[in-house]
Amino acid sequence: VSLRDEILEQPEVLARVLRAGPARVAAVAEAIRSRDVTYAVIAARGTSDHAALYAQYVLGVRNRLPVALAAPSIVSLYGVVPRFERAVVLGISQSGASPDVVGVVSTARAQGALTVALTNEPESPLARAAEHVVDLDAGAERAVAATKTYTAELMVVALLSTALAGDDAARAELDLVPERVADALGAEASAAEIARQQVEMTRCVVLGRGFNYATAREWALKLKEIAGVLADPYSSADFQHGPLSLVESGFAVLAVAPSGPTMSDVGELLGRLRDEQGADSVVLSDARELEPVASHRIPMPPDVPEWLTPIVAIVPAQLHAYHLALAKRRDPEAPRHLRKVTLTR
Amino acid sequence: VSLRDEILEQPEVLARVLRAGPARVAAVAEAIRSRDVTYAVIAARGTSDHAALYAQYVLGVRNRLPVALAAPSIVSLYGVVPRFERAVVLGISQSGASPDVVGVVSTARAQGALTVALTNEPESPLARAAEHVVDLDAGAERAVAATKTYTAELMVVALLSTALAGDDAARAELDLVPERVADALGAEASAAEIARQQVEMTRCVVLGRGFNYATAREWALKLKEIAGVLADPYSSADFQHGPLSLVESGFAVLAVAPSGPTMSDVGELLGRLRDEQGADSVVLSDARELEPVASHRIPMPPDVPEWLTPIVAIVPAQLHAYHLALAKRRDPEAPRHLRKVTLTR
Repeated sequence: VSLRDEILEQPEVLARVLRAGPARVAAVAEAIRSRDVTYAVIAARGTSDHAALYAQYVLGVRNRLPVALAAPSIVSLYGVVPRFERAVVLGISQSGASPDVVGVVSTARAQGALTVALTNEPESPLARAAEHVVDLDAGAERAVAATKTYTAELMVVALLSTALAGDDAARAELDLVPERVADALGAEASAAEIARQQVEMTRCVVLGRGFNYATAREWALKLKEIAGVLADPYSSADFQHGPLSLVESGFAVLAVAPSGPTMSDVGELLGRLRDEQGADSVVLSDARELEPVASHRIPMPPDVPEWLTPIVAIVPAQLHAYHLALAKRRDPEAPRHLRKVTLTR
Repeated sequence: VSLRDEILEQPEVLARVLRAGPARVAAVAEAIRSRDVTYAVIAARGTSDHAALYAQYVLGVRNRLPVALAAPSIVSLYGVVPRFERAVVLGISQSGASPDVVGVVSTARAQGALTVALTNEPESPLARAAEHVVDLDAGAERAVAATKTYTAELMVVALLSTALAGDDAARAELDLVPERVADALGAEASAAEIARQQVEMTRCVVLGRGFNYATAREWALKLKEIAGVLADPYSSADFQHGPLSLVESGFAVLAVAPSGPTMSDVGELLGRLRDEQGADSVVLSDARELEPVASHRIPMPPDVPEWLTPIVAIVPAQLHAYHLALAKRRDPEAPRHLRKVTLTR
């Protein structure tokens, strides 16, 4: 089993999550509704932290629930017990093993807060620490770089949001996703061709906003992890508060900009970066409107509801990072200096 | 007035904040105590977002108050009104002008949440939107790159934390800070010398953890903004979950690691990156223990309580970015493509 196999397996994994997931999240949604929860706290690291970021937008936009992304060191290094009584506290981790993430959940549970683990390892320390466990059931992930566990995490977050809202129409939208993800795999040839042209790239920025800020961060992480490119992710708003100064002629700017409320924001910025600063832009989008600002285009399937686009958009981005690693003669199966499970305090 | 003048002015600005600040934050602390606040939400962009990050750790560690860093686009682009009733909602902005930050505070106030503006412009839209206003009173900041307004924001956050805790001993610790910041200016020669050696650097990572994760982010932003270096900031924990794979022989790793609970965490990682991966390391610290892992060292004054080190540590970092800009023949007074006030939706 290779990294590419796991990328290609995602439609099937997501279909499985859709079958078993609704029953798994129902008890969590019921517990959140029945307790006096005023906000959510999510602890996660690496790729799972991007699923947490997606949850911040999904629960924020669709459930009006404010989400705090935890700073685990407050518990693990400073030994503080934050007042989590009125929060639902979620830990998200593929392995369920990292002590700092487990620490946040344990601390919350000890003070009676509602706790939930979202993990691919239902017997892990994280699963044991939480009151509720949602098994991702993504199958064993063997590649060091996480792919299918990431999209499975996003799908579980989306399922939880629909269950919490009791929104059957939104729930039905999810059924389209596995097929759209299968369509998105068709972007491999474009992604690989662009990657080959970028073989000399050592640095870039990755822009996204709203739901797809998570996609920008995850794309950037894959580029760092397997392709050795220093990719710095930014929301298109934050990027204008300083970092924009970096971009000069030929500087690579990657952007995730599917149709929806954030598209024009990302598109306008990209236009400025290209026309005034000479950026070399790669646009991952379904929207033809963005062609004028794109030096290169990675297509994604149309007609995906915007809130679900992160589950689809990351797939061509994973393939782009994979092919860039190959072009740079780095082994995507064995990223240098990494192991599959990282334990941090 | 130049950027360097504003960097050098910081001891005086901080002394002024210490004189007038306690009265300014008292009403805010009283309002937080008297209402049934269960967590804080902070909206900010750019440099001020790093003051928000510092607040996440200070309020978390010293007041046990969970802090959510807001995703302003939830309000501004998606038009959602999050349920902020039980939160204290703070907006932090030098100019007080950015519509997306103002939007979060306005929305919160309209639903009766406690709102606070922390700004250098007490007649700004942000100040008008909030119920309580804390004037930074840092004096006009003319350079595009924010320096003295950043340390003033950190000081106000520290003052607010001591007022909220009613902690007179902690309040007294603050009185040392202006003098330590003055001492920190003495690192200019070291910082400039290292900058001259780094004239060819185009990319680096900046590590920090806990309170000084904010310092790592702000140092990285200054490097991007004025020196054109793609500097990617990481907590030393998150860095191990993937990005570590980037570091190869000669790769520049900058680290902020003052004495305290996070020092050994950052130091151990730096040792691995240097010994096993050949990193070229720059360590900003008061601790002699870290000399073995430092290719270069930028000193900072000893005996600063760890929670206050971010106010001191950023000063040599600002000077490093300033001198790197000069070494690279970029004008630090006029970062390319930027204006002082950035308005984002």
